Amino acid sequence: MDDARLVRLKELYSDVSYIDQAISLLSWDQETYMPSGAVMDRAGQMSTFSAIYHRRITDPEIGKLVGELGNAALPEGESAIVREIARAYKRKTALPESFVKEMATETSLGQHAWQGARAKDDFSIFKPHLERILELKKREAEYVGYSDRPYDALLDDFEPYMRSRDVDALFSSLRGKLVDIARRISESGIQPDESPVTRGYKKELQERFCLHLAKTLNFDFERGRLDISAHPFTSGTRRDVRITTRFDEKDLRNSVFSTIHETGHALYEQGYSEENYLTPLAEAVSLGVHESQSRFWENIVGRSKPFWKFMLPSLKKHFPTMKGVKLDQFHSAINIVKPSLIRTESDEVTYNLHILIRFEIETAMLEGKVSVDEIPSVWNEKYEKYLGITPPNNTKGCLQDIHWSMGLMGYFPTYTLGNLYSAQIHAAMLKDIPEFDSLVASGQFMPILNWLRERIHRKGKLYPPRELIQRATGSAPDEEFYVNYLRKKFSEIYGISL
Amino acid sequence: MDDARLVRLKELYSDVSYIDQAISLLSWDQETYMPSGAVMDRAGQMSTFSAIYHRRITDPEIGKLVGELGNAALPEGESAIVREIARAYKRKTALPESFVKEMATETSLGQHAWQGARAKDDFSIFKPHLERILELKKREAEYVGYSDRPYDALLDDFEPYMRSRDVDALFSSLRGKLVDIARRISESGIQPDESPVTRGYKKELQERFCLHLAKTLNFDFERGRLDISAHPFTSGTRRDVRITTRFDEKDLRNSVFSTIHETGHALYEQGYSEENYLTPLAEAVSLGVHESQSRFWENIVGRSKPFWKFMLPSLKKHFPTMKGVKLDQFHSAINIVKPSLIRTESDEVTYNLHILIRFEIETAMLEGKVSVDEIPSVWNEKYEKYLGITPPNNTKGCLQDIHWSMGLMGYFPTYTLGNLYSAQIHAAMLKDIPEFDSLVASGQFMPILNWLRERIHRKGKLYPPRELIQRATGSAPDEEFYVNYLRKKFSEIYGISL
Repeated sequence: MDDARLVRLKELYSDVSYIDQAISLLSWDQETYMPSGAVMDRAGQMSTFSAIYHRRITDPEIGKLVGELGNAALPEGESAIVREIARAYKRKTALPESFVKEMATETSLGQHAWQGARAKDDFSIFKPHLERILELKKREAEYVGYSDRPYDALLDDFEPYMRSRDVDALFSSLRGKLVDIARRISESGIQPDESPVTRGYKKELQERFCLHLAKTLNFDFERGRLDISAHPFTSGTRRDVRITTRFDEKDLRNSVFSTIHETGHALYEQGYSEENYLTPLAEAVSLGVHESQSRFWENIVGRSKPFWKFMLPSLKKHFPTMKGVKLDQFHSAINIVKPSLIRTESDEVTYNLHILIRFEIETAMLEGKVSVDEIPSVWNEKYEKYLGITPPNNTKGCLQDIHWSMGLMGYFPTYTLGNLYSAQIHAAMLKDIPEFDSLVASGQFMPILNWLRERIHRKGKLYPPRELIQRATGSAPDEEFYVNYLRKKFSEIYGISL
Repeated sequence: MDDARLVRLKELYSDVSYIDQAISLLSWDQETYMPSGAVMDRAGQMSTFSAIYHRRITDPEIGKLVGELGNAALPEGESAIVREIARAYKRKTALPESFVKEMATETSLGQHAWQGARAKDDFSIFKPHLERILELKKREAEYVGYSDRPYDALLDDFEPYMRSRDVDALFSSLRGKLVDIARRISESGIQPDESPVTRGYKKELQERFCLHLAKTLNFDFERGRLDISAHPFTSGTRRDVRITTRFDEKDLRNSVFSTIHETGHALYEQGYSEENYLTPLAEAVSLGVHESQSRFWENIVGRSKPFWKFMLPSLKKHFPTMKGVKLDQFHSAINIVKPSLIRTESDEVTYNLHILIRFEIETAMLEGKVSVDEIPSVWNEKYEKYLGITPPNNTKGCLQDIHWSMGLMGYFPTYTLGNLYSAQIHAAMLKDIPEFDSLVASGQFMPILNWLRERIHRKGKLYPPRELIQRATGSAPDEEFYVNYLRKKFSEIYGISL
């Protein structure tokens, strides 16, 4: 029988979850259907609800309950529920209300300044804002606490329990290998033909195809939707998961891979266990694991040859312009590796170098080893060093991402962690499902999804992310799986030995 | 300079308003885009937010501030703000939390039972629920208080400051006149041809035409949207007003008049003053006045000959099937008067008889003069007496409306009050804008809208509804304007003297 205190704690937490869901719906609406005149009101509503959310998650009654229950002997699941609510409570109560408000104001101003700086290619507009935000993030780290480096306190918000030392270890052995693979591909002089994916695609047809794609991958439309927004995203959870995509009439890749990517995120959200709904056991364990799910479907499945062996006939049926395109041609066109300046437009090899650069700069910033002033030059040096190209301006350089202006530091590494996890998961899955490729090639995705559901989705926050990966794949997070995956895949595509 | 207490009161109230706006968005989403699997979650979110809303509007600090400011000498506008917040505070605090919960549970069960009763045409399924809801509404009246009849306490929630005695006075002189007009039209034996509006209309074309209609009537799409739902409604306020419509491919009237109706509601919401936003001075004064705005545009403008003189060419352009339809034919087809069983499908004359019947029954129920048991027979007798027809079953009789199952008693009369106000407003407007018909016939709706904005919309809750009508039209609410409007209009259409 449930401890009455646990029942009460769950009750308080389910209210917090409902508030979170409503905030998520307000954001979704803002990006999809909201009329432009409502911008100010939505900001007002969001600020009211953020305050309500903050008050509820820091309710002293929650503090008291997790304090008492933290010492109680509970079964594994319930103990994890208490642990994770305690984590959220502790983090939120660590920040004084005045600090939270200051951060909200500074990041709001910061985003505005960042937009202006970007439009005018003038880093100096953003500089004073980033300096203030950086100071606030340092204070945040002090409030939250850390045992090793201040960066850990920030990283912990996105990749719980992970230390920057762990990330360093993974990334530093990854760095050289990626640089090497990218360089060898570049030096091969081989450049696949892009024309099979740049033939012109009507929006209406893309929309129909994207709906078909999501459905094929077992996105549950009874518990979700697909809409359109300027930047694709996934919002909501479990019974109401909404994804978006966007259409580029000249380039098919934009809508197709953003749809598969967001479908991957959505399958995670739709895959939590029903019996733990409205508890941390039906929540994403980390951004890295979340990204592993989107990347698994987008890249490991969605950019594979077996997948397009299955989907290309359907793609051709949707788009008359695709007539005559061969599978190999198409597969190469969606897997072009080329050093580029913009993170979001990069490929599976170079993407992670973009992330490594950001991670290195933000850890150095936080430790005072790089000043905000120096960011543009450090940025450009690293691009030259890792990717062999130098941004012609800051708009295409250190001003390209919105993250720092929003106060998101410690967030970037989760993108690469996601990629690493996805390959590691794939490798483990191959042991259980050796017929993986033929399943994909015949459109049988359920066995694959079920494997993910059982080992990842249904666990929610039961284990810390590192332990979850260990249990799901049989080994601790390791960059070798990803490197092997890249070598094998791109050796084949480029016909060179990587 | 603003009293600091007033500033604080407005601050607290704007938070309440934002919460209300978010609840409204959650409802809108539920009826338009929400996936079916999210029903339970949405109920949970709504219940969480209703509780938050209730807690905020009954915040003792609000009670203290309105108590103090209620005695302060304030300018007219600020005094009205205090008065109206005090009203909301008083009504909400009057109801014990346990009562609110009981009501929520009973009406939730009641709606479910009502649906079952309706589907099976079995009043006995709904009966015990309606009995319990009636008991709760009686208790609510006692909690809220009244000086004359318990019904007043319920009516006051929808038509503030109005007494059932006032409604009685209006309705009892209306009743005989409506019965007389309906009877004379029926006895004339004249039956206009329906075929001009039942020629087949593709959904996509209807959607385009409805968007065009709303735009033509000055619905501001920068501050609103038009979507599709099973039952048309308007939600949101001022900067984000969303209306819906629905399409019947066989009958054009459904989408066209629901669009104009909801546009009328929306123009009211979009018309509040910016400087009083987030106070009661930028809120609807009553449901009756709200309905007067929808009915004004739907019937007085939208079912007039000048309006279709202007719009028919555009309608024909949208729908090829409308070729050859003459203005007179069309005008008659959208103004057929015929006694019918279903309120929502009835015409301008008989509609109000449907309402009178409901008002008579619910006042009698509340005073114990009619028991729930007797409703079906009383209902059927009244239909025979006022409309000359008897429902063949309860589904088409006393089970047709959802209102009572939701605990909405005291709501029905506002529909007819809206009709009465709309004609009275029209009569007053004609004095200021004698060229009304020619403006409408040439599609110049702004002078008409501006008149409404100035005298109705921008006032918000500055005056009680009765005083607002008096100030806007020069006389207290009076049913004669509506009766005269009907007599003139339908004498022309039917070619008889009414």
